[in-house]
Amino acid sequence: MTCYPAGTIAVIFVAQRTAQDGAGYAEAAEEMIQLAQQQPGYCGIDSVRDANGLGITVSYWADDTAAKAWRDHPRHRAIRDAGRDRWYSHYDLHVAATERSYDWEKAQ
Amino acid sequence: MTCYPAGTIAVIFVAQRTAQDGAGYAEAAEEMIQLAQQQPGYCGIDSVRDANGLGITVSYWADDTAAKAWRDHPRHRAIRDAGRDRWYSHYDLHVAATERSYDWEKAQ
Repeated sequence: MTCYPAGTIAVIFVAQRTAQDGAGYAEAAEEMIQLAQQQPGYCGIDSVRDANGLGITVSYWADDTAAKAWRDHPRHRAIRDAGRDRWYSHYDLHVAATERSYDWEKAQ
Repeated sequence: MTCYPAGTIAVIFVAQRTAQDGAGYAEAAEEMIQLAQQQPGYCGIDSVRDANGLGITVSYWADDTAAKAWRDHPRHRAIRDAGRDRWYSHYDLHVAATERSYDWEKAQ
């Protein structure tokens, strides 16, 4: 349940996992979430992966400077290299500036 | 494997399914994907749901006019009402304008 202000940067990562190295991937994914949360300008993350290994992760950043700083974080770079080496068969990445944002929760 | 031009509108829908009416939901979801693809300005869709019922769907539109026309489509409105009535316990919706976009595929 999260609304973001206009201008929040959404980084949309759509990626197909290979069948390789599940344990290594899980460890790295957890590390990246923990590390992202410590970065300046981190606003939130949504992440889902289905049984076929297709995943969408959206991370939200206060501004483009924060999003780029995360992109350039040395540990994040190293993990991305590992991702291309063995964890992903393909991915798309879209960086987008939020214009409007809504949330809804069912009344109990 | 899709790059979108700057200005493409990404509509990010993060939603938790209830356990209710799986058959009705599946039918409506398929209908919405088919219908979206026929709308002017439709560019693409990525959709993933995990075993716990958390899903992320991102639809991509040529511009905000196209995204709003889809939002206002009468059939889409009716299905959204059904979603709030029985399919979802909560959701977030973020509308964002793409600034940059990349794709990558593993060399065979």
